[in-house]
Parts: sequence; structure tokens; C-alpha cells
Amino acid sequence: MSKKIAVVLTDYFEDSEYTEPAKAFKDAGHQLTVIEKEKGKTLKGKQGEAQVETDASIDEVSPADFDALLIPGGFSPDILRADQRFVSFAKSFMDDKKPVFAICHGPQLLITAKALDGRGATGYTSIQVDLENAGVKFKDEEVVVCQNQLVTSRTPDDIPAFTRESLKLLG
Amino acid sequence: MSKKIAVVLTDYFEDSEYTEPAKAFKDAGHQLTVIEKEKGKTLKGKQGEAQVETDASIDEVSPADFDALLIPGGFSPDILRADQRFVSFAKSFMDDKKPVFAICHGPQLLITAKALDGRGATGYTSIQVDLENAGVKFKDEEVVVCQNQLVTSRTPDDIPAFTRESLKLLG
Repeated sequence: MSKKIAVVLTDYFEDSEYTEPAKAFKDAGHQLTVIEKEKGKTLKGKQGEAQVETDASIDEVSPADFDALLIPGGFSPDILRADQRFVSFAKSFMDDKKPVFAICHGPQLLITAKALDGRGATGYTSIQVDLENAGVKFKDEEVVVCQNQLVTSRTPDDIPAFTRESLKLLG
Repeated sequence: MSKKIAVVLTDYFEDSEYTEPAKAFKDAGHQLTVIEKEKGKTLKGKQGEAQVETDASIDEVSPADFDALLIPGGFSPDILRADQRFVSFAKSFMDDKKPVFAICHGPQLLITAKALDGRGATGYTSIQVDLENAGVKFKDEEVVVCQNQLVTSRTPDDIPAFTRESLKLLG
């Protein structure tokens, strides 16, 4: 069944960590909504490869409109987590046990949402200590699926495993 | 007396958080050494305003060669803290109680060095929870000086207070 997936994204995202999961999700029949501060803005990836137009402003969406959440990495999550609207939005998916897919620096948004204590997860090397300090059981593995709800991966190399496990949860 | 200041820096640094403290330190007669993975590389600031040539490779310097450490912000500290050589380098200054000046995302490197537990500090909004989880008493102030050794600030707006307190510690 087609699911509605929210993507929280801004400039400096890691290009392939948006484009590849997005393609896999769309190919499987799911619908994506790219959410930033502004609607209709063109976001640029950190590598200069991908450009993405935003579908909605964070002010006009509700977590209730979506079945799952994707948080691509790069420097985008660090920028988003300085904005309480994105922190609250992500927290809601975690609280409601909806599927959340976070790769590379993606889990930074979940750290600020204080949603990771006691969870198993992975992430990019630079945020390992932050994850551990947030109460995460850190695993240096290509993909970690926690409680059939939270999917995390480390780097672009892990994208195949990340999309495979995410698609399983989307059903 | 002229002091030797190590600066750990890489691409995507917040331009003014290097250029303005660097100018203030040089104007006061201190010597700066910009350290990256490679010597003689031209680093580019995140805002596209500043370009900095590196003076030394991390492999050819020792903390013993320097009196103090400057960690400018932007995305540079996140990149540096994924490299254990920079983590160990920064940890040494903290262990030896030499002056350490970290602005914006700069404290991320000190989090990974596990050098902040019980210290008073500040930093950019996005890393507040990481700092608190690392045992920091977070203060939302333009500059925090902890134990006459660690100087931290939040954003480019705080640079005047940051350089003023850093220069005091350099004597």
C-alpha cells in the first residue's frame, strides 16, 4: 500500500542520501513530501550534484498527515535541529512509533528531540559520541533496525542496506 | 609576551570565526599556525568570503609546540572530529590546562575528546543538547570563561566578547 513519507531537508544535504532513498521509495509506489522552512525553494546538495524543490513549509504540515519520516544526512540535520519546529515534528513520529529513517548525520535531529535514549542506532563517525551521550547503544553496522521502527545507517555506502530495511518497514 | 596559538581548521569553517580572532591575536603580537590534514592547502570558508592557507599538517605538529588552541566554528569542527588525530590534539590542550578557545560548533571537537564533563560552556544552538549530554553546564551567554582556561561563544555576533576574553588569557 502506498505510504506518505515526510522528508525534512535543507541546504548542504548529502546528495545521494536524499536522491537514492527517494528514488527507491517512489519506485515502490510511495509518496514523498520534501519539507523545509519555505515551500517552492530549490535546495542544493553539499556535493553540488542534486537540486531538490521543496513541497511544503514546516508551518503548513502536521505529523498526522504522514506515515513515515526520512532524515537524509550531510549538514542539513544540524541546520534543521536549530529550529524547534523541525525538532517537534521529528519527535512526534518517534513518540507515535511511526517508521523513522535517519542516515549519516540524520540522527542529530533525533538527539535534539531527546528521542533516542535506550535505542539501538548507528550514524556517521563524527556523531558517535553524541549518540552514546544521548543514551544510544551505538552499533558500527551498515544498518540498524530498532524495535521495528527506527532505521539508521552511517554513510552513503550504506544506502542499499538503508533503503532495503526502510522499504521492509513501509510494507 | 608572544604566544604560539594552534588553529585547527578545515573547509566549511565559518569565515569570520577564523578571520576576526586571527586578526586580533596577530595584532596583539601572537603567532598563529593553521593546522589541517595537509600543509599548504587552501581552505575555503562556508560563506565564500575567506580563504586560508594551511601552515602545517597534523602529522608534523605536537601540542607541546603551542601555548593555546583556537577552534573556529562552521562545519569544520564536525569534519575534524571524525579524525582521531585532531581529537587527540585537542584533548592534550584540555588535559594540560592550556587556553582553549572554541566558538559556535568548535566545542564539538571537545565533546568527542570527552574533555567537557563538568565544565561551564556555551556553543551554537544546534549543539546545545550535545553539550548538555556531554556533562556541560550550558550557559546561553555571549562568552563563557571556565576555570580561567576554556573560552566558548555561540555565534559570529559574539566574536568581540570571544576575542576579548581569549586575549586576556593569552596575557
